[in-house]
Amino acid sequence: MSEDIRVQRTRKDVTAVALTILLREGWSGVTHSAVAKASGYSRATLYTHWPSQLDLVRDAFSSYQKMPHFEATGDLKRDLQGELASFVNAMTEYHLDRALAMLSEKSQVDQAITPIRDSFVAAGESPIRETLSNKFDAEQTEALTLMLCGMVTHSVLMHGNPTSHETIERAIDLVLAGIRA
Amino acid sequence: MSEDIRVQRTRKDVTAVALTILLREGWSGVTHSAVAKASGYSRATLYTHWPSQLDLVRDAFSSYQKMPHFEATGDLKRDLQGELASFVNAMTEYHLDRALAMLSEKSQVDQAITPIRDSFVAAGESPIRETLSNKFDAEQTEALTLMLCGMVTHSVLMHGNPTSHETIERAIDLVLAGIRA
Repeated sequence: MSEDIRVQRTRKDVTAVALTILLREGWSGVTHSAVAKASGYSRATLYTHWPSQLDLVRDAFSSYQKMPHFEATGDLKRDLQGELASFVNAMTEYHLDRALAMLSEKSQVDQAITPIRDSFVAAGESPIRETLSNKFDAEQTEALTLMLCGMVTHSVLMHGNPTSHETIERAIDLVLAGIRA
Repeated sequence: MSEDIRVQRTRKDVTAVALTILLREGWSGVTHSAVAKASGYSRATLYTHWPSQLDLVRDAFSSYQKMPHFEATGDLKRDLQGELASFVNAMTEYHLDRALAMLSEKSQVDQAITPIRDSFVAAGESPIRETLSNKFDAEQTEALTLMLCGMVTHSVLMHGNPTSHETIERAIDLVLAGIRA
């Protein structure tokens, strides 16, 4: 096994373990000791690749980049509905609600977290923004992205409930009728 | 000074101090000792009125009930715009962003917090819901409340920015045009 493949495998294993610990025990649970113990790698190896706790946490969040998104069809309503449904689904399926709550809370008290939150949110929103920006101008895209993504995050973070499919469809119909009017 | 007035004053003083500590030091900073020290009341007095830490935190959050809301005029667009502007303003003026982030994060890991979050969110949303429910049916009110309040909370919690007045106006125009269509 080449050096590169070995390093890749280490990164993958450790990142997965770090994410599991992050979601189960919260931010402070992600220590080099805890991740070393749970992943079977030595603390020395961990410190080589992830010098700080922030490095471990950053990579843990980056696992979400592999999260499935809806495959765009070109049909606006269908694409918005599909992507928002994936977004809602990720809340329960991938504990995205937990990840978002931790990132928003932590970035308020620690500026070092802000870039992690920003790139996490930008990646999450990008399919919706892209779908919208293909059809609408920048200002409309911004207002629509904030309303549609906001509906999903607000439901989960403020009400503790995933947005229902009916509410998502009603919201999309409403804003698309508004744009056409 | 009557017993009642004395108790009221104690509640008011202690609640204000508990909120200040909560916003400055976070959840775990709100201890009977810290609040006693900062408010000048004895720990015995605090334990009489607030037997648990949760009681202190609950009352700290209840201070937000006195937060100013927009005074409704009966003009739908103006009322929505005014109330959402108050909402955005409270994020910076009253650290509402911090309160919401703490409540959403904590209620995910401690079910005892859920009722505090729920009544806090319900009280915050109520002027918007009332304005909307005067004109629209229950399903439309739900979708509109989640989109409009969601736009504001999503901007602040996920992007770290208050929603701009232009975006709020554009969003309101859009959804109202959608409803009319």
